[in-house]
Amino acid sequence: MKVIADFTLVPIGTGVSLSPYVAACEKVIRSAGLKVQLHANGTNLEGEWDAVFAAVKRCHETVHQMGAPRIFTTLKIGTRVDRDQTMEEKIASVEKHLKTGSGIHE
Amino acid sequence: MKVIADFTLVPIGTGVSLSPYVAACEKVIRSAGLKVQLHANGTNLEGEWDAVFAAVKRCHETVHQMGAPRIFTTLKIGTRVDRDQTMEEKIASVEKHLKTGSGIHE
Amino acid sequence: MKVIADFTLVPIGTGVSLSPYVAACEKVIRSAGLKVQLHANGTNLEGEWDAVFAAVKRCHETVHQMGAPRIFTTLKIGTRVDRDQTMEEKIASVEKHLKTGSGIHE
Amino acid sequence: MKVIADFTLVPIGTGVSLSPYVAACEKVIRSAGLKVQLHANGTNLEGEWDAVFAAVKRCHETVHQMGAPRIFTTLKIGTRVDRDQTMEEKIASVEKHLKTGSGIHE
Repeated sequence: MKVIADFTLVPIGTGVSLSPYVAACEKVIRSAGLKVQLHANGTNLEGEWDAVFAAVKRCHETVHQMGAPRIFTTLKIGTRVDRDQTMEEKIASVEKHLKTGSGIHE
Repeated sequence: MKVIADFTLVPIGTGVSLSPYVAACEKVIRSAGLKVQLHANGTNLEGEWDAVFAAVKRCHETVHQMGAPRIFTTLKIGTRVDRDQTMEEKIASVEKHLKTGSGIHE
Repeated sequence: MKVIADFTLVPIGTGVSLSPYVAACEKVIRSAGLKVQLHANGTNLEGEWDAVFAAVKRCHETVHQMGAPRIFTTLKIGTRVDRDQTMEEKIASVEKHLKTGSGIHE
Repeated sequence: MKVIADFTLVPIGTGVSLSPYVAACEKVIRSAGLKVQLHANGTNLEGEWDAVFAAVKRCHETVHQMGAPRIFTTLKIGTRVDRDQTMEEKIASVEKHLKTGSGIHE
């Protein structure tokens, strides 16, 4: 079962700068062979269910080892069985509607 | 690594009533031996990391088998290594502050 | 437009104990006249759109005033126009399916 | 109070294709004068609190008018008062750590 996920990890009790922890987590994810897209509020992941969730677990372990006593993570997870779809196709599908002008305003 | 999580599963492409799918997922979760609290916007889970995520995966498989072509799930995941904490203790900790009157208004 | 929402506020840069901030936010919400249910991973709110989001904004202002330099909030928001539904009815709808045994296992 | 937010709107009861609704919501957001970045699992927004939430409300109204009986939205909201930060700066901050090699692996 393939997953497209959005992953945001917030270390708690480490101070106001989160980027060293987020970067360590990014390295874990990239070494896991997943398709990865960093964005302003998290990281998009595409891959098989078990590989995606193993990487998320490894991130929690890594960030705790770096000294974060507590972690708060949010995940949005999409699965579909009607057809295969990539992250690029999801974006293209919305942009097609934006260009052709279909929607509420027409 | 213990997890306290909030889990909301939304089947897509099945019509406006989601409760049969949510109930099937609840059964999966309860048969997994996790601590479970259904609330108005999801289900709170407490257990070991692998058991929690195995149950979430089993929910996706079950709801797809029921006919949902597409699923959108949101998870909030809390882990901490400084001390053990249960779901009841998290609520009690906030309620203690409400009763004693500590906070911005005092 | 009525909203049923799940609200989790995480102050960042304030240390490992979040409950004083969460409790201050609870007070803000309760003084706003919304229907409120505290749970282990957040707070469920029910009310008119503008009242719910005014309370969320007031929480951010309050927690910043308490000294949190940074806040990370997650919201799940449900609206429906086909019929009116309360938080209690959402839970009862799932529990009815659990009791009658409808679902994938039957 | 400035906000950087991640917004994902899921219409319920409209079928398996969500992109026409998501595209209509994108038009609402873009006409609101916010900074906007569409990604594979949502849309990142940057702007003043009231402008961001007015756009989110307008999306719900628009998608209900298009025929969706029910909507499920998730929002991640970041505010900070210690300094100003843009979406581009958030990404650059993580990428700097990736390049310089700071983190758990070094």
